[in-house]
Amino acid sequence: MEKLILHEDAISGNCYKIRLTAALLGLPLERRQYSVLKGETRTPAFLSDVNANGRIPVLQIEDRFLPESNAACWWLASRSPLVPDDRFDQADMLRWMFFEQYNHEPNVATLRFWKAYVGFDKLTEAQRALVPGKQAAGEAALALMDEHLGDRRFFVGGRLSLADIALYAYTHVAEEGGFSLARWPAVQQWCAAIAEAPGYIGIDA
Amino acid sequence: MEKLILHEDAISGNCYKIRLTAALLGLPLERRQYSVLKGETRTPAFLSDVNANGRIPVLQIEDRFLPESNAACWWLASRSPLVPDDRFDQADMLRWMFFEQYNHEPNVATLRFWKAYVGFDKLTEAQRALVPGKQAAGEAALALMDEHLGDRRFFVGGRLSLADIALYAYTHVAEEGGFSLARWPAVQQWCAAIAEAPGYIGIDA
Repeated sequence: MEKLILHEDAISGNCYKIRLTAALLGLPLERRQYSVLKGETRTPAFLSDVNANGRIPVLQIEDRFLPESNAACWWLASRSPLVPDDRFDQADMLRWMFFEQYNHEPNVATLRFWKAYVGFDKLTEAQRALVPGKQAAGEAALALMDEHLGDRRFFVGGRLSLADIALYAYTHVAEEGGFSLARWPAVQQWCAAIAEAPGYIGIDA
Repeated sequence: MEKLILHEDAISGNCYKIRLTAALLGLPLERRQYSVLKGETRTPAFLSDVNANGRIPVLQIEDRFLPESNAACWWLASRSPLVPDDRFDQADMLRWMFFEQYNHEPNVATLRFWKAYVGFDKLTEAQRALVPGKQAAGEAALALMDEHLGDRRFFVGGRLSLADIALYAYTHVAEEGGFSLARWPAVQQWCAAIAEAPGYIGIDA
């Protein structure tokens, strides 16, 4: 089997997606740590050797590098039960993964990073001006998820898929970003269902 | 074959991705128009019948609805030559499609929409404050693409794939957003190569 190395920052939910996917599939991952806060993903060495986009996570597969958390999860899980075979369900799973990166992560994950890691008092004026918009957009994303999950156990096809993993990563720690999950009971139930999956690991594992 | 209806706004590059993918594959699409500028994707009927997220495009496949442009392209192109079979290349294609939605579209597409459609003088104070950051981030995305394309004809696997279609949609009209493509010659060459593909249609078709 290919040797897999995850270039990551352990605090990042995007990195956790890949660790959780690998754990659910029983795939071993070697982990290399970089601190985003210390700028360790913007060094010349990182940009030339790991990811020219200056971001983690990057999944290294032997000597090839795959950035973008959801693409790395796809590589790990393709041809596994975490990716539906059905043509519509497979596209619908990707639909929720694109939703996650466009509507959810830039709001829910960014506010968590700013509030729980950078520190609210250390934000620039420009960042602070963005907080209300990101709060509202994050709440809209969580409300949409809650509505969708009202009559479903998982996002797509009645079973756990990468759509759940991608959305779970920052949702289950959204309180760190100032979002109260008590407002979204279907989301809370769904979080509990994911944590019961065989092989599940927490974000701190 | 399934009846396909594209719920769209013809000015949107995200909608064009789907039309271009369908044209390259020879698939007929019925088109239904909604004006984003007039708020026609936020009406109660649209939210309940087409997309609870209030966004176009949505690809309707018989009686099922698939939001998110790149997921719709995936549905159309899965098992076609526009999606590589190779496991790494397939994940790498998705990597560029997630990059497009995260690093490219929110900057290049948003500035095009604001400058060419909303009108710069009609922007709110808050929107105007975001312009310099979006300009810089859009330029960074285009520079990264230009670097990647320096020794490649297409993004992944040496042939046209959905990665190219997703990134082409807003790149080839980036000048409408105030980006000068003359700075990125490899991007310009790649745009020309896509326009030569059999079945190609323009954004105004």
